[in-house]
Amino acid sequence: MSNQITRKQFLLGATSVVAASLGAVGASAMGADGDRSGQAGAISGAAAAWPFPYKKLNPDDVRKRGHKGYYDGGCCYGAFNALLQPHVEAVGEPFSNVPPQMMYYGGGGGAGWGTLCGALNGAAAFIAMVANRASANALISELFGWYTETAIPTQLSNDFAQQHVFLVNKYDKALPQTASGSPLCHASVSSWCSATGIKSSDPARLERCARLTGDVAAKSVELLSAFADSQFRATYIPVQSVTGCSSCHASAIGNVEPTVKMDCQSCHKDNWRHLY
Amino acid sequence: MSNQITRKQFLLGATSVVAASLGAVGASAMGADGDRSGQAGAISGAAAAWPFPYKKLNPDDVRKRGHKGYYDGGCCYGAFNALLQPHVEAVGEPFSNVPPQMMYYGGGGGAGWGTLCGALNGAAAFIAMVANRASANALISELFGWYTETAIPTQLSNDFAQQHVFLVNKYDKALPQTASGSPLCHASVSSWCSATGIKSSDPARLERCARLTGDVAAKSVELLSAFADSQFRATYIPVQSVTGCSSCHASAIGNVEPTVKMDCQSCHKDNWRHLY
Repeated sequence: MSNQITRKQFLLGATSVVAASLGAVGASAMGADGDRSGQAGAISGAAAAWPFPYKKLNPDDVRKRGHKGYYDGGCCYGAFNALLQPHVEAVGEPFSNVPPQMMYYGGGGGAGWGTLCGALNGAAAFIAMVANRASANALISELFGWYTETAIPTQLSNDFAQQHVFLVNKYDKALPQTASGSPLCHASVSSWCSATGIKSSDPARLERCARLTGDVAAKSVELLSAFADSQFRATYIPVQSVTGCSSCHASAIGNVEPTVKMDCQSCHKDNWRHLY
Repeated sequence: MSNQITRKQFLLGATSVVAASLGAVGASAMGADGDRSGQAGAISGAAAAWPFPYKKLNPDDVRKRGHKGYYDGGCCYGAFNALLQPHVEAVGEPFSNVPPQMMYYGGGGGAGWGTLCGALNGAAAFIAMVANRASANALISELFGWYTETAIPTQLSNDFAQQHVFLVNKYDKALPQTASGSPLCHASVSSWCSATGIKSSDPARLERCARLTGDVAAKSVELLSAFADSQFRATYIPVQSVTGCSSCHASAIGNVEPTVKMDCQSCHKDNWRHLY
């Protein structure tokens, strides 16, 4: 790597900044309700303006990109890049300044630890890049809730596979669908494997997570586009165990984290020791 | 917002690109062992070069930034920004093109869902921005493992608080330390609250997570700097339940996700139904 910068590089850089800035200010901007910290476009060397200007996307296009992206770089990269790349192509900067590879790590629930589903993690990072803090949290919570109670992969994904219109075709059969009941990778994968009898190392399970990645990215488009149109309304209602358990645990007699929204009973079975 | 770009903005942009690019190529670069996808610096409007060039940081400075960042924007933002901001100050672009606010969402284990600890999620995103995929996964897995078995907040954090040398002083007493046994927000917070009798809504618990955020960011510096010096060696060994359970479940008779590294028994108590 050279320590020198050529005149050609200097001029190329200057030109791209102008082109991208014009593109950015021409795109729709979200988050005018508070947290916006500057102007759109990466004009100066100061901190990046945020939120980035979301451009409404086609959910089916994004679904296919997410499916392909899973095979390119895992679930977290796949979902993030499915949302980022159309913006890079249509808008350029500031989106092109963010390396999608920074989301590789979320695969397998975070370096293979099985925690947060990487598709959710990657989609959430993109949502948080284009919406202010409070709005992003509402959109992401809705996405997580949808994920826990939706039969995944969605029927549409299966139709896609049968019609061979995914961008890659690793496995084109219909797949069993299950609702994970949890946003955790380990619980999501294991519950699907248990219900279907398909091993986690099977190509069918990889394809399940590839379609899931597309589904999560496409659902994110649906939520973001509704939000851009001021039409987003949260519909997810936490499961009964969360409200039931919290009625004691979030008050005087318990110390549990009151903001948790995961189904308590996915881990705390009835035969766990109960102190009170 | 205006659709116009002024001559002043154009020139300001051009100047900052040159200055930042020179800064970037002068900094150390990681990931020469494979995945590097381009040159350092955000010179053109094409996809961002990656990995970004990591510059060795002072862990105590980063610890204080992480602690303060928790109060500014939560655990995930706090850890990410503690690692990002020194690079913005010392190097400028490409780091300054990434908005740290995109990590707000990880707080409370992802929009308050209690999944992956946000400090881990934010630190992991930064690590994955400056190290190639395989190396980042190894560093992040080590970070997660360290987190599960380390008494947190570390004693050093308590010393910091007693000496009033944090960047913010919300709570300056020593705090009880626990090893979480889990990378999950809910398990980490709840086990600390259960062990200490301190409620999750108590300012002491907030301070616990603020110090934890600093600890995670500082540990990330230690790992990244060792890696930059080619001195990183993974030391974390998965708990016995992972290897024990996997000996059956990852082979012929089970369908469980074999890559999971969380302690199985943190949820699968002995009185869970066992099929085999």
